[in-house]
Amino acid sequence: MNTVDIIRKKRDGDVLTPEEIRYWIAGVSDKSIPEYQSSALLMAIRLQGMTDEETAVLTDAMAHSGKLFTPEDMGGFSVDKHSTGGVGDTTTLVLIPLLAAAGLTVGKLSGRALGHTGGTIDKLESIPGFRTDLNLDEFLSLVQDTRLALADHTDDMVPADLILYELRDVTSTVDSLPLIVASIMSKKIAGGAQGIVIDVKTGAGAFLPELEDSRRLAHSLVAIGSKLGRQMSALITDMSQPLGLMTGNALEVIEAIDTLRGEGPSDLATLCCELGAELLVFAGEAATREEAVLKLDQLLMNGKALDAFRQLIGQQHGNTAVIDDLALLPRAARKVEARALHAGSVARLDALEIGRAANLLGAGRFTKEDDIDPAVGIQLNVKVGDRVEKDDILAWLHVNSEEHLDQACRMVEGAYTIDASGDPHQPPALIVERIVGTPEG
Amino acid sequence: MNTVDIIRKKRDGDVLTPEEIRYWIAGVSDKSIPEYQSSALLMAIRLQGMTDEETAVLTDAMAHSGKLFTPEDMGGFSVDKHSTGGVGDTTTLVLIPLLAAAGLTVGKLSGRALGHTGGTIDKLESIPGFRTDLNLDEFLSLVQDTRLALADHTDDMVPADLILYELRDVTSTVDSLPLIVASIMSKKIAGGAQGIVIDVKTGAGAFLPELEDSRRLAHSLVAIGSKLGRQMSALITDMSQPLGLMTGNALEVIEAIDTLRGEGPSDLATLCCELGAELLVFAGEAATREEAVLKLDQLLMNGKALDAFRQLIGQQHGNTAVIDDLALLPRAARKVEARALHAGSVARLDALEIGRAANLLGAGRFTKEDDIDPAVGIQLNVKVGDRVEKDDILAWLHVNSEEHLDQACRMVEGAYTIDASGDPHQPPALIVERIVGTPEG
Repeated sequence: MNTVDIIRKKRDGDVLTPEEIRYWIAGVSDKSIPEYQSSALLMAIRLQGMTDEETAVLTDAMAHSGKLFTPEDMGGFSVDKHSTGGVGDTTTLVLIPLLAAAGLTVGKLSGRALGHTGGTIDKLESIPGFRTDLNLDEFLSLVQDTRLALADHTDDMVPADLILYELRDVTSTVDSLPLIVASIMSKKIAGGAQGIVIDVKTGAGAFLPELEDSRRLAHSLVAIGSKLGRQMSALITDMSQPLGLMTGNALEVIEAIDTLRGEGPSDLATLCCELGAELLVFAGEAATREEAVLKLDQLLMNGKALDAFRQLIGQQHGNTAVIDDLALLPRAARKVEARALHAGSVARLDALEIGRAANLLGAGRFTKEDDIDPAVGIQLNVKVGDRVEKDDILAWLHVNSEEHLDQACRMVEGAYTIDASGDPHQPPALIVERIVGTPEG
Repeated sequence: MNTVDIIRKKRDGDVLTPEEIRYWIAGVSDKSIPEYQSSALLMAIRLQGMTDEETAVLTDAMAHSGKLFTPEDMGGFSVDKHSTGGVGDTTTLVLIPLLAAAGLTVGKLSGRALGHTGGTIDKLESIPGFRTDLNLDEFLSLVQDTRLALADHTDDMVPADLILYELRDVTSTVDSLPLIVASIMSKKIAGGAQGIVIDVKTGAGAFLPELEDSRRLAHSLVAIGSKLGRQMSALITDMSQPLGLMTGNALEVIEAIDTLRGEGPSDLATLCCELGAELLVFAGEAATREEAVLKLDQLLMNGKALDAFRQLIGQQHGNTAVIDDLALLPRAARKVEARALHAGSVARLDALEIGRAANLLGAGRFTKEDDIDPAVGIQLNVKVGDRVEKDDILAWLHVNSEEHLDQACRMVEGAYTIDASGDPHQPPALIVERIVGTPEG
């Protein structure tokens, strides 16, 4: 077997054998295959595609390129959730303790913000003392002992993805469906979860704004996870406007605590219960999704989900007092109002623009090396379907600097489309579609 | 301008601007663009193609990546000939002195054998003392002083082609028409010739055996050279059977001397006159091709072409006595006969098999590092259309070793298809098509 022949096969649109795909990924991982050959193969894959069977083998080979958790490592059946990334997407912060409260095992490795998309690790680090840099032994001990842990990715898991992702980034081969799916699913597979739900965002603030693209991604993620024996489902959910009201790291922790107390925005709470219900059914903790949703809703109302969040913070060395005293979280120097220029009904609220404005204030990263400011962000006052009068507050900008402030304020105002005609507008459907897999093998 | 955007454009099938192509080739040459980006772009070009306009700019940019000869360097209007490579293709050895005898300026840089295809430089080096490793100053001095020189390629000309060719070889991006054309034509353009004829071989022994592919290559070579202001023509010529009777380095020198003396095989002599006629017309040394062919034929008959070969050998330090005493050339230890298994008419003679058999005897290279044996090779006794009886000699194998001898003998016998039916067979047409360009700019 040699790399030139593998490249030629894919160049000619042929299907690679499992042995050929594993040979490539082994050579990527041990660096015996030079980057110039991998990049030619990546471009051939980008232009000629891969079958589901090829993508599943690629995913599995990448998952096995480094440390991989077995169900034994995880202390039994564990679950995981992945989001394709959005604006003000506080779901993970709420869902993980909520699932733990429901009795599931949740050991989740998560990522940082990049571009207009927030990252769970950055959000958690706004809690004073909270440690996300667990090594794999610490992480597994927590999972086995307490059934709950949430830490940053480490480089000893799925190293092939790290190498290939950097190469894709500089060779215009990022937007390849099989490569995207293999990148996402290899990390989920290596993470050891047996039941996985994917939140595929769609609309302006999503990684793939077009519904047709989101749908193809969702189907492919479910197909590949199922082929690799996982219980899989995906919800395609709205990201045309931000989820909840908060965008920004500490602001989203506040919103998560509110939601875990049963006092959060209803879209965020609903999405967490719907995503969680998939996993409760997979884990056998509920017979039907309806029963699971009721159970999860109760855990938000009776304080048990909040208790689990307190436990998570405590065992990862964070200050648990933040839960009862939000003032202990980083707080911006001042709040600046963005106001309606005229009366009407909010017809659209562009999530991408809100994400970009929050970034401009310092909440996110433009490059991997940028620092973030945990305190800053945007707090929405109205969303699609709400009625406003002229000069009503649309949103507050939580700011620590005058830099870019005017520009960010204009962006927030511009993100709102206010229809003066008097016609009412409905919020977009939160859950657009649900795709469920049948595990194979 | 940045490389990622250039790769993305070509990936999406868009046309690159001249500035983008020149930026890439500059980055290839000074190594500021990493190989993993160039290989992704090469694969995108392989799969998405290039327009003639893009290919012309690529050719020009590559030609300018190193030392480039101007018409002044060449002492005026000079001509060049390129062959896409074949078996027993002695054309250059005959044509270059023939053109010089006709009063044209010919400074030709040529290559070595690789695969089943012979190389002019290897053939010339079988002449004792002949120096092909002229530096560029020596080469230009000869051209300016004597209007005649034939030397090996040097690395300071068209370095971008050296780099890209090595990368294409290991990334399955060799067989891309625009990349093939740019590789060939960049060297011709850098070589300074204003009139260029291309001998595009077709049939079993050719680089591209299918006529349709040969035709596309010929049209593209002529189009690109014309766009760059050169007088261009291409002949598509038969390589289903070997040209002439000899395949092997010293054997082809002998055949060239015979031909320059007016005693060579008629197909070789005819092809040299037809190719040369294109250049005589370009140079204004003949009004029509018919007139040019007559003139060249005369130079073969009256000894002037042979005189020019003597001059070439002498001024490049070779032993000119070989011309009158062929025994001074390397000679194989013995000749082995391949004989006809039955009587009939030669219906086909597979050039590729003859080339492979000659290689097996040591006449060619399997890898760039292999040594060649100048003395060995194959001398054909009959070709397509000839009638043979059982046990008649088909060919002689000139050999220096028993190794692979039986196998080579079987290959030579197998290269002949002898039709026992008694039906006559005609030799294939030597010149299949002629394509002429109109120089632009």
